[in-house]
Amino acid sequence: MTHHTLPATADTVHWGYFSKTLEPQLTIKSGDRVTIETITHHANDDHARMIAGDTAAEEIFLWTAEEKTIKRRGAGPEDGPYQHGSGEGLGVHLLTGPVAIEGAEPGDVLEVRIIDAYPRPSASTAYEGRFFGSNPSANWGFQYNDYLEEPKPREVVTIYELDMSEPPTVSALYSYLWTPQTDPDGIVHPTIDYPGVRVDHNTITKKEGVLSGVKVPARLHFGTMGVAPAEADFVSTIPPSYTGGNMDDWRIAKGARMFYPVAVQGALFSVGDAHASQGDSELSGTAIEISLTGEFEFILHKKADLPGTVMEGLDHPLLENDDIWSVYGFSVTNYLAELGPDSQSEILKSSSLDNAMRDAFRKLRRFLMTVHGLTEDEAISLMSVAADFGITQVVDANWGVHGSLRKSVFKCY
Amino acid sequence: MTHHTLPATADTVHWGYFSKTLEPQLTIKSGDRVTIETITHHANDDHARMIAGDTAAEEIFLWTAEEKTIKRRGAGPEDGPYQHGSGEGLGVHLLTGPVAIEGAEPGDVLEVRIIDAYPRPSASTAYEGRFFGSNPSANWGFQYNDYLEEPKPREVVTIYELDMSEPPTVSALYSYLWTPQTDPDGIVHPTIDYPGVRVDHNTITKKEGVLSGVKVPARLHFGTMGVAPAEADFVSTIPPSYTGGNMDDWRIAKGARMFYPVAVQGALFSVGDAHASQGDSELSGTAIEISLTGEFEFILHKKADLPGTVMEGLDHPLLENDDIWSVYGFSVTNYLAELGPDSQSEILKSSSLDNAMRDAFRKLRRFLMTVHGLTEDEAISLMSVAADFGITQVVDANWGVHGSLRKSVFKCY
Repeated sequence: MTHHTLPATADTVHWGYFSKTLEPQLTIKSGDRVTIETITHHANDDHARMIAGDTAAEEIFLWTAEEKTIKRRGAGPEDGPYQHGSGEGLGVHLLTGPVAIEGAEPGDVLEVRIIDAYPRPSASTAYEGRFFGSNPSANWGFQYNDYLEEPKPREVVTIYELDMSEPPTVSALYSYLWTPQTDPDGIVHPTIDYPGVRVDHNTITKKEGVLSGVKVPARLHFGTMGVAPAEADFVSTIPPSYTGGNMDDWRIAKGARMFYPVAVQGALFSVGDAHASQGDSELSGTAIEISLTGEFEFILHKKADLPGTVMEGLDHPLLENDDIWSVYGFSVTNYLAELGPDSQSEILKSSSLDNAMRDAFRKLRRFLMTVHGLTEDEAISLMSVAADFGITQVVDANWGVHGSLRKSVFKCY
Repeated sequence: MTHHTLPATADTVHWGYFSKTLEPQLTIKSGDRVTIETITHHANDDHARMIAGDTAAEEIFLWTAEEKTIKRRGAGPEDGPYQHGSGEGLGVHLLTGPVAIEGAEPGDVLEVRIIDAYPRPSASTAYEGRFFGSNPSANWGFQYNDYLEEPKPREVVTIYELDMSEPPTVSALYSYLWTPQTDPDGIVHPTIDYPGVRVDHNTITKKEGVLSGVKVPARLHFGTMGVAPAEADFVSTIPPSYTGGNMDDWRIAKGARMFYPVAVQGALFSVGDAHASQGDSELSGTAIEISLTGEFEFILHKKADLPGTVMEGLDHPLLENDDIWSVYGFSVTNYLAELGPDSQSEILKSSSLDNAMRDAFRKLRRFLMTVHGLTEDEAISLMSVAADFGITQVVDANWGVHGSLRKSVFKCY
C-alpha cells in the first residue's frame, strides 16, 4: 500500500465537470491511499476568510482582466461567445483529480473508503487557523420562488465558522444579500450564475448576529465525489448520476465506503464540494460549503469478483458504513443515457421526488434480492417495515431519494 | 390528575373514520392520563393468533351471516347498496375513542404525551402470551403496479412475531398470497378491499421460513391518532390531515409529545392502527400491524396561552421528543377544505411527494420564524444545513414528508 498526496493546485483541479478526457493527476494501485485536498468553489463568497494568504486557493481563483487561471468553470465550451463566463455555468463544483486506478475497466466497481476528513485552515493573517464556510440560499434552491418576504426572489449568503473542538459545531457569523457582481471580464452577475466570482464586499451589507445562539452539529462530508461517466466528454457536476458525483448526502463522510460502477478506463475519480454540514434536502441550494482535505483508500473490484458481494449487479452508487447501506434513487436513473443529446439541460426540467422514490425503491429491491437472496415478496415486506427513505436533495436538478437499511437486521443479536 | 382506562370493546371502537358526531367514550380533564387499548384492523389476517380467545377482539370482529357487530367499517354510509361492505372501504382503521377533553374548543391545541406503549398478548391457547402482527403488501402499496415477478399484481401477507426481550425485535413467521375471500354476506373480496375480512386459512398456502435470519428492531408506535376534523361528519381514516390521523410516522412512539390543532368541541381524540415496526415510506402499504395498548397524557392548551410556546400559530400536527421537532407536510395541506365536496375521493388522485416536500418546507419555515423568532433568511439557511426531510409515507393517498430539526441546535453545549 502506497500513501500518495494530491494537493489542490491550479494543475490538479478541474472546475464544473467530470470528464473522461482528463489526464490523471495521479495513477494508483488498488489498495493505495491518497490524501486529497479540496477547495470549495464558494471560497470567493468571503475572499478574506477563505482565500487570502492561501497560495493554492489564490492561484486557482485568480481572475483579472489580463489573466484567468482556470478558464473553464463548467461543462460548456472554453471559448465564447458566452453570457456568464467560460463553461457557461453548466456545472459549478471545483474538483480535485482525477485519480486513475490501474486496471480499472468498465464493469468493475471502485470502492472508496473515507478514512478521514478535516478542514483546511484559513491562511489569512486576521483569521489564521480558523475554519470558514459559506451557505448561499441560491437561485436553484427550493425556496427561490416561494419567499414570504421582500425583496423576492433574492439570494442570501450566510458565512459560518466551524469549531473543531469536540463535538465539532458550526455557527453563523454574518449574512448578506447578493448584489450584482461584475467579474474581471466586465460581465455582470445579477444572481449566482457563475462559480467563483469574487464578491466585492464593498457592494454588500453584512448583517451580523444572524442565527445567534444556534450551533449546528458538524457533519463533515464530501458533496461531490465519483468517477467519470462514459456518455459524454464533459459532464456537468450538478446532476448526480450512476457514477456518483453531486450526491449531496451528508453520510458520505468519515467511515463511509462508497461503491461506484466504473464507466471508463482507469475509473477517473474526482472529489470536491466539501461541506461542514447539511440536512437531508439541502434545501437552500447549498450546504455549508467549506474546503476539506480527505484521506481516501481505493479498492478496485474486478467484474469477475463481484458476484457474492454487496457489489453484485451494482449499476448505481451504494453507501455502506458501520450502520447502514444506502442506495440512491434519482429523478432520472441515468439521465445522460435517457434524455438524449440535450440531457444536461433536459435534466433541469425533470426534477421529481416521486420518480426518485420509485428509482430508490427499485434499487433497494434489487439490492435485497441480488445481494441478500431475498424473494421479491420478502424484499418488499422488509423495506416496508425496516427501510427508511429520505430526501437527499431537491436542488441538484436530478433530485434524489436515498433508501437506507440498517445492517443489523441481518445479524441482529 | 386522574388515571382512566379505556379498553377496546365493541362499544369503544369506531372503524374507518374520524367523526365529530361521535359520543365521547370518556370525558377527561386536561392533565389526566388514559390507558387506551387498541386492536389492529389486520387481526383477521391470522385469526388464530390475533383474535381467537380474546373476547373483546372476537366481539369487535364478529361477523356472521346473521350478525355483524360493527356494521360500518369505513367513512361511507351504513346502508347499501354497496359493493364491498358497509362504509364501502373509505377508511379502514379500527380506532378506540373518542376521548373528549373538557373545555377543548376550536383554536386550542391538544398535546398528547405517549407515556408508554406495549403489545397486547395473544389469548389463544396455542399462542398465549405471544405477540403477533401482520404486514400486508397491499393494493395501495407503492409496489403494486411495479412488480417484477408473477403473479402480478398480487397481495402478500407476512405474519410477524414481536419478541419483547431487550432490545425488542420483530421476525417474520410465514407469508401467504392473498386469495379471494368471501365474507359472511357473500361478497367476494378479490383484493384487500374491505377491512377486517377474516382470511380463511384453508384457502391460502403458507410459505414458512420467510426472511429467515432477519430480525428487525421494533419501533412500537401508533400509526393513526389524532382529533376529529370539522369539515365533514365522517372522515376516512386513510389520508392524514391537519388534525393528525393516519400519520404513519414511527416516531409517534413512547416519549413523543404530539400537538394537534383542536377543530371541534371536546377535541375528540381517537387512536389505533398500532405498529410493531415501520420504515420511513411504509412502502408496501402497511407496517407490522399489531394491537398495542398505550398510556397517554392529555394536556389542553387554550388558544390564549399559545403565544410564546412551540404551539403558537400551529395549524398542523407537530411532534416533539427528546431529540427533535418534526412538522408534517402533505400532498394537500388540508384536503378536506381544499378539494371540494368529493375531497375524500379526490385526494386519492392528488398524491405527490413534491407537494408534500413543499408543504413541509413551508411549515418548518413558519415554525422557525414564529416559534424561534428567526428571520426568513435565517430559517432557510438553518433548514438547509441542519434540518432533515424524510418520506413519511407514500401509501396513504395524502402522501407525507416530515421535516425534522434537532432541538440541540438551539441549546448546544
